[in-house]
Amino acid sequence: MPPALPAPASASASWPRPLPNSTASVVSSLNSRVAAIEADLGISAAQQTISINKVDVSNFPKNFRPKYESLTSKILTPEMYAANCNLVGPRNYTFDMAIQCGYDGRSGTGMAIPDQESYYLWKDWYDFIIDKCHGHPPDAKHFTDLDSSHVDISRLPADLDKYCISTRIRAARNISGYGLPPASTRSERREVRDLIVEGLAGLTGELKGKYFGLDTMSPAEEKQLQDDHFLFQMPDPNAMIFACGGVRDWPDARGIYHNDDKTFLVWVNEEDQMRVISMQKGGNVPEVFKRFALGINEVEKVINAKGKIYMYDDHLGQFSSCVSNVGTGLRASMHILLPKIIDQIGQDGLEALCWNKLEMQCRGTGGEHTKAIGGRVDLSNQKRIGKTEVELVQIMTDGVCTLIELEKIAEKGGDIKARVAAM
Amino acid sequence: MPPALPAPASASASWPRPLPNSTASVVSSLNSRVAAIEADLGISAAQQTISINKVDVSNFPKNFRPKYESLTSKILTPEMYAANCNLVGPRNYTFDMAIQCGYDGRSGTGMAIPDQESYYLWKDWYDFIIDKCHGHPPDAKHFTDLDSSHVDISRLPADLDKYCISTRIRAARNISGYGLPPASTRSERREVRDLIVEGLAGLTGELKGKYFGLDTMSPAEEKQLQDDHFLFQMPDPNAMIFACGGVRDWPDARGIYHNDDKTFLVWVNEEDQMRVISMQKGGNVPEVFKRFALGINEVEKVINAKGKIYMYDDHLGQFSSCVSNVGTGLRASMHILLPKIIDQIGQDGLEALCWNKLEMQCRGTGGEHTKAIGGRVDLSNQKRIGKTEVELVQIMTDGVCTLIELEKIAEKGGDIKARVAAM
Repeated sequence: MPPALPAPASASASWPRPLPNSTASVVSSLNSRVAAIEADLGISAAQQTISINKVDVSNFPKNFRPKYESLTSKILTPEMYAANCNLVGPRNYTFDMAIQCGYDGRSGTGMAIPDQESYYLWKDWYDFIIDKCHGHPPDAKHFTDLDSSHVDISRLPADLDKYCISTRIRAARNISGYGLPPASTRSERREVRDLIVEGLAGLTGELKGKYFGLDTMSPAEEKQLQDDHFLFQMPDPNAMIFACGGVRDWPDARGIYHNDDKTFLVWVNEEDQMRVISMQKGGNVPEVFKRFALGINEVEKVINAKGKIYMYDDHLGQFSSCVSNVGTGLRASMHILLPKIIDQIGQDGLEALCWNKLEMQCRGTGGEHTKAIGGRVDLSNQKRIGKTEVELVQIMTDGVCTLIELEKIAEKGGDIKARVAAM
Repeated sequence: MPPALPAPASASASWPRPLPNSTASVVSSLNSRVAAIEADLGISAAQQTISINKVDVSNFPKNFRPKYESLTSKILTPEMYAANCNLVGPRNYTFDMAIQCGYDGRSGTGMAIPDQESYYLWKDWYDFIIDKCHGHPPDAKHFTDLDSSHVDISRLPADLDKYCISTRIRAARNISGYGLPPASTRSERREVRDLIVEGLAGLTGELKGKYFGLDTMSPAEEKQLQDDHFLFQMPDPNAMIFACGGVRDWPDARGIYHNDDKTFLVWVNEEDQMRVISMQKGGNVPEVFKRFALGINEVEKVINAKGKIYMYDDHLGQFSSCVSNVGTGLRASMHILLPKIIDQIGQDGLEALCWNKLEMQCRGTGGEHTKAIGGRVDLSNQKRIGKTEVELVQIMTDGVCTLIELEKIAEKGGDIKARVAAM
């Protein structure tokens, strides 16, 4: 509890009066005794008790034009707000701080996850928005499968690499016991960096590489990483992660690891504590997936040896700073050439086909809302949660096979419109 | 205290074990009893007790390249950090949040003031940085004088308006009991807006005007305010006020009041709760000052009638969101034409003269670091604290008189260099 304010020069009787002595002394005594018990238990070394003003529904964000709209700004009700606004987790990150990116940031979901504890504090709301965002009901379970041998690749054509330019799989991991980037303290961010860097330092063979700290790299290293398109930039001020506090102290304790072949990449303390990326030219999905899983598992071993585990929940799956990425947080993507399909049904038609029939998202050559140059599109799994990593990679693989089969028909002058309509 | 985390699927014995039953139940009982007493006293309606992780000196912001340097980033020591980092005021705004603008923001001082309570919590540090910034030692008192008749204008020349293009006085006011913009809740921001708008609505005569909410104004009103150069913009993401959280929910509860003559302007919930500006063409300092003081005092009467007062402290003076503006927060300025002085000693020479000898700051025509076009400069008081409003306006008035006298000598071909050197 903060000390009482000294009465300012012009204050009068309206200034808060002290509590009646007897009651005040009883409360004070109780407070001291609880503190003594906490000290005895060693609790006070790690935690402190503070008193803060309650907020109520009058603090609900309404009646103004937010800069951006988000799922949060559309579906959060005053009742849901009131149920959560005074529940504050151990990192002092409030519900108001978590929804702020839904009003000030350019974010689809607009809901940050500051730490594991806050997920359980605000679980009803999180499970509600996760269902709205991902179609994953509150009682649904999430399962993990990182075994690349479980992916059925029998349909992949022999001439795959004629169509497939590159394959990439990425997902996030966060370590339990530390804040996610929106809420992590500087010391947590540094400890997380040290743990991950130690884990990465143990990688051997194909995964062996080097870590470059954004806060310590030399200008020559910076230039090299830029030339390789590996260097991530400070997120812009409209980004979700900026608006929820995840860009504080940039570039403190952020960095990039890559293997010597530049096919395995780890971003440290960007939007998540760890973002793991596996990629290579061509369409060898199992190779990319296997490398991805190996990297994640090898780092996990080092982390486990330190008594730490990745954040995980049976309903939510893997945690992430943003509600849009919970579950697997996995995005498996391939850059594929489909010029003949686009000739017949247009890029819009292809995007609709992928989204409505193939559980995939189709983007243009340069990402969302860009044009497919020379018929080159970026195909990826639509879902993130409620299916395992293997299932999501399978969906992407099967979808790509289906599309290449269609492309081959179109190449031979066949009309694919009726086939697409029948799918 | 947040509920204990459910053990995740892969957790084992490393997961925190519950306290021994007997001690846990005693602590729990004490907690319930304290809560019951609080409820009985009506405390729980306004405040809640939460447990948060303590931070320590390992969380000190060091060993990284901050985007900007600030006074805070230069003078804050690990010891000062450790003394303050676990003291949290009633708005849950931490010391870490207050210094963040000193590392992520483009700010000279880099230290936010979230509320009156936090000033008293972190007083040793605030008084230290205020002294470093303003030369106002911890034991110094601040005094207020808003009586424009106390300004001696006998030296102002009869042909003042030949040299003086315009005069402007501005200062901030904040209402006690609410957070300053970095920490204010939405409901506080709205209550503050309502209080100020009610106060402004009572203004009569010359001060009578209209309030335009940034969140409610029509496109036509927006255009008119833009054309009048009255409309303040959302502070950019590098601004101090952005980096300390004062731009949340923009444009919620922000707005502009101006009188019919457009000589009296109030910004609501921009960098401070209230920024009052009085201005007009020519050099009639008393008229500008009188209008400024009248507006502030009339709004204060309405606020007082509601049982509220402006934030004030005998050492600090008026509060402001930024340490650079505490004290009077007053900037009295005149746009003056001094082409002949600049011909002889250059703009740099004039700026040095103002700063070193006249307790004034001299800026170019378009503000800091701009060129003086046609000899037009912006002259203002250098200090903000430790002198009264009358004294600061007097300093500016006297300085302007001295400079106009020099300009007249230079106009007649006299050499002013020796005079300047002897000042």
